[in-house]
Amino acid sequence: MPESAVMGQRKQPRRTAERILEATLALYNRFGEPNVSTTLIAAELGISPGNLYYHYPAKDELLNALFDRYAKALEELLEAAGAARDIEDAWLFFQMLFELIWSYRFLYRDLNDLLSRNRRLETRVQRMLTRMNAALREMLQALGRAGVLHMADEQLEPVSTSMVVVLSYWLSYEYVRDPRHALEPARAGQALARGAWHTLNLLVPWLEPGSRAHLHTLAQAYARTAHTAHTLPTP
Amino acid sequence: MPESAVMGQRKQPRRTAERILEATLALYNRFGEPNVSTTLIAAELGISPGNLYYHYPAKDELLNALFDRYAKALEELLEAAGAARDIEDAWLFFQMLFELIWSYRFLYRDLNDLLSRNRRLETRVQRMLTRMNAALREMLQALGRAGVLHMADEQLEPVSTSMVVVLSYWLSYEYVRDPRHALEPARAGQALARGAWHTLNLLVPWLEPGSRAHLHTLAQAYARTAHTAHTLPTP
Repeated sequence: MPESAVMGQRKQPRRTAERILEATLALYNRFGEPNVSTTLIAAELGISPGNLYYHYPAKDELLNALFDRYAKALEELLEAAGAARDIEDAWLFFQMLFELIWSYRFLYRDLNDLLSRNRRLETRVQRMLTRMNAALREMLQALGRAGVLHMADEQLEPVSTSMVVVLSYWLSYEYVRDPRHALEPARAGQALARGAWHTLNLLVPWLEPGSRAHLHTLAQAYARTAHTAHTLPTP
Repeated sequence: MPESAVMGQRKQPRRTAERILEATLALYNRFGEPNVSTTLIAAELGISPGNLYYHYPAKDELLNALFDRYAKALEELLEAAGAARDIEDAWLFFQMLFELIWSYRFLYRDLNDLLSRNRRLETRVQRMLTRMNAALREMLQALGRAGVLHMADEQLEPVSTSMVVVLSYWLSYEYVRDPRHALEPARAGQALARGAWHTLNLLVPWLEPGSRAHLHTLAQAYARTAHTAHTLPTP
């Protein structure tokens, strides 16, 4: 198999770059980007600082590469927003969106600080928020066409913007409410469920009665799967 | 005359403590608490570091004293929440709340970071959020009793929580949307008006039609004022 041998050789540096990003993401999520040095990343991986430097000559390049991945995964998800046909689609969408935000929670934790140090990130985050807002409006319009909700056009912007704010800052809010436990992986399921519930709940008054009842059932079922002993809306 | 002389003598240290807090608040709001040293504060006031140390022996005591003031002003405002009788009361309440948050915006800007370094603040911020949430629920119930809105009891918690999240993170959201301009005092009026509007807009679907129309009128009038006279006190 000479081909796979060649592939193997070619893939080597790419695999190292990949491993570096994965380890960096884990460290950033755990300790926060400002508290993780490139020395720590190299030590965690058991590689030399020179090898890390070969792949990512500056710390900001790690951040940009991680943001690339986040933006790509987010875009794939947001493309599905306008295809929502019922409340179950919307529910699934917000669960997935919260899980993605959780995977890149370091971005949201120190967002103001990261932006003040990285101008490329600044523009990209702005674009990301605008895109998220537009995708949510598409979802509201799609649900409106499907008869799931009834919302006047002038309500689209304020509602989608409030959803973006709740989505973007829900984990910060959970953290502030309980700094020493809220973001432990064991509690994450509950924190994310509460976030998805509060975001989707912004639509409740606009839902037609059948969808409203359906959302209620979904929320309760999800509360059980996330093995919460309590009912969902208990922040 | 002799009495006022005695008062004057007694007041001297208190007035210095006061001046220190005012200068500190202005510096924190401008540069962020983590970027302001006690040396800078002393230099700004033209006093010796020893004099500053005499009043506030540790940097955290400045933070705690500022939080005391914020908490006191907030509590006075929140006590009025349950007295809201119409949409104009609610509108005024959210304007004042946003102006207070603006005056202490440094707290909101680096909240996660401040909490991780000051355990006293941790408990106090938690209590503050719980109190804010309860006050908003009182407002919703008062407006319900006055016939201004119709909301089922199980909606009180999710709606008040979403309002707390939007209130607490609106300025962060504005900052992220436009890091180099959003929080300049000249733009603050518009940023705060947008925040008050989005927070209050969460009630729109529950409002009886007359109040809904009234809110619409108020929002338009305020948008005009915010555009023309867009200057706010810069503490």
